[in-house]
Amino acid sequence: MTGFTLDPRITAVSIGVTGLWLSELRLINDARFPWLILVPRVHGAEEVVDLTKADRAALCEEITAVSQALLSTTGCDKLNIGALGNLVRQLHIHVVARFAADAAWPGPVWGNGTSVAYEAEERDRLITNILTALPS
Amino acid sequence: MTGFTLDPRITAVSIGVTGLWLSELRLINDARFPWLILVPRVHGAEEVVDLTKADRAALCEEITAVSQALLSTTGCDKLNIGALGNLVRQLHIHVVARFAADAAWPGPVWGNGTSVAYEAEERDRLITNILTALPS
Repeated sequence: MTGFTLDPRITAVSIGVTGLWLSELRLINDARFPWLILVPRVHGAEEVVDLTKADRAALCEEITAVSQALLSTTGCDKLNIGALGNLVRQLHIHVVARFAADAAWPGPVWGNGTSVAYEAEERDRLITNILTALPS
Repeated sequence: MTGFTLDPRITAVSIGVTGLWLSELRLINDARFPWLILVPRVHGAEEVVDLTKADRAALCEEITAVSQALLSTTGCDKLNIGALGNLVRQLHIHVVARFAADAAWPGPVWGNGTSVAYEAEERDRLITNILTALPS
């Protein structure tokens, strides 16, 4: 994991939630969607296939844990999971709680409209709920 | 796997490529993007978390194999991987070869414009190349 640093374009739009075994878990600062990203702490990784098999398995289970936490915390209608990276190449995986009434439904959240920053209280409550729902 | 059938909205827009251990591999009939989907043969699954841990691990490795085949076959600039399902609930995972000059770049392919059906020759060549690139 030597040399890993978060891309400043990721830190600029997100808030640290916790460090998982492989990935940094961060909340995208957009109150329109409960939207988490996982950033594996692997220097230079841009694609899922850049990870070792063991790291891919760990990532898969971290995505699962985060998915379950978002489902139980938000009661969303659907999860959207994505690894795109067309703009920011550093490997990061989106896990987004979607609602049939949300601002982008049924389209994807990526590239949709303009983000709306959280109020501090709402942000802190969501982060606390997610941390509580994650397996310890 | 009892009771599994492909959603007709998936068969309507895609062409069968092969059956992997867990998933049906299909090509989206849109010549604008080399775009594959994996559909795990698990009746009723809508979210990745609906799969068992063993099936999730298998799916992760099938996504990896398909990703590597698309990378080597197309020489694309980036892979986009996504599990959305806002319109078609049956669990299906997109693996899309993206190019900096493609019709949707840098946005996502989902919901972008109108699909362009393949010419038969181009479709068959792409499928043959993908099958050749997949581990046997």
